[in-house]
Formats: sequence, C-alpha cells, structure tokens
Amino acid sequence: MLYRDYRDVPAEVAGEGITIRWVIGKPQGAPNFAMRVIEFAPGAVFAPHQHPYEHEIFVLEGEGVAQGPEGEVPMRPGVALYIPPNERHGYRNTGPGVLRFICVIPHPEAS
Amino acid sequence: MLYRDYRDVPAEVAGEGITIRWVIGKPQGAPNFAMRVIEFAPGAVFAPHQHPYEHEIFVLEGEGVAQGPEGEVPMRPGVALYIPPNERHGYRNTGPGVLRFICVIPHPEAS
Repeated sequence: MLYRDYRDVPAEVAGEGITIRWVIGKPQGAPNFAMRVIEFAPGAVFAPHQHPYEHEIFVLEGEGVAQGPEGEVPMRPGVALYIPPNERHGYRNTGPGVLRFICVIPHPEAS
Repeated sequence: MLYRDYRDVPAEVAGEGITIRWVIGKPQGAPNFAMRVIEFAPGAVFAPHQHPYEHEIFVLEGEGVAQGPEGEVPMRPGVALYIPPNERHGYRNTGPGVLRFICVIPHPEAS
C-alpha cells in the first residue's frame, strides 16, 4: 500500500496560475489510470481543448465553471464531472480562493 | 460532459455502517474505470480482504486507518492511497464523524 499526502507531491506548472500534482500513477506502479490533483489560482483559465482520453473529475475546494459542448456547469465541492474522450472542455476559477479538483485519466498519460 | 453532485447519487449499503455511491461508471459511459464515494459511519470496519484489481483512493473527510501488509496507515483529508492488485487491505473509521473517501477501480466492477 502506497501512502501519500497530496501536499507532499511536487506541484508542476500546467498553465498560468495552474498546477498539477501526479499523486498516483505509473511511477507508483498503478497499472491502469493516474490520479492527479489540479489547482487553479483565482481567475485562472484553461482554455477549451480536447484529447482522445476521458476525465473523471471530483471537485475538492473552491468555485469555478467547466465549459463543455452544452455550455457551462458549476464546479463546487462534491461535484463530479465525466468528460468523454474527444469532447471539448475547459475550466475557469470564478471564486475568491483556489479551485482544487481531482482528475483521473487512463494511461498513457497523454497531455 | 456529465455533471453530478455525489450527494444526488443513491447510497448503496456495502456493509454495516458503510455505504457506496457509484458516481461515475459504465452507466455514465466511462470506458475504463469507475469513481465511487464510500462512507464509513463512526466505528465502522471493513475487514481485510483482497481482489485482483487495484484501488486509487483519496480521503475527503474524517479520520481512519487503512490496514495493509506493512501495518496501518492513517486516513485523513488529503491522503491518497494506492492499493495494488491482490494486496490484502481493510479500513476502519476511528474518528467521531463520517469517514469519506473516493475509491477508483478499473472496469469490470468486480466486488
């Protein structure tokens, strides 16, 4: 059993005001999928994009919106999002504090 | 994009004082893995067991311990656990409130 506090995992820059921590993944021996913790500073935006793998997301803290083909949906603690492969999506922190969420993706870790 | 508040997902009984919510899975179209939210009432115990698929866990709330081959590790908000396939593991809520964590498993959803 691997035990990690996500705060002990180095935060890599993933955009302006955006960081990513690869909490569980191939280096930890996980065979199928990777769990990341992503943080957006207030006002940070990840513009709409798409890729051939899905996202399973769970919001831990903060307030934001996710953009999808049908419009925007709110991100707040307790909200889960499923973004299918090849579906266009983006995120924006709309709150006064950090927006933090878990994002699980299958291997390989395409970016 | 599928949007769900985990609190809107029916909680199924998974043991004495233990519930599971299948927040994202095959019924939502997820092709590779399922995200569940599991809750332990104070004092609830899931005895050590094993199965051929891995767990990727993230603790949301509460206090508990996870048992593995090397002994016990603490469960508290922000802790992630990786439990490899076929490794024996159990959980216990040791706090005064609910112990709540995310547990992601690959398809098929063996139980």
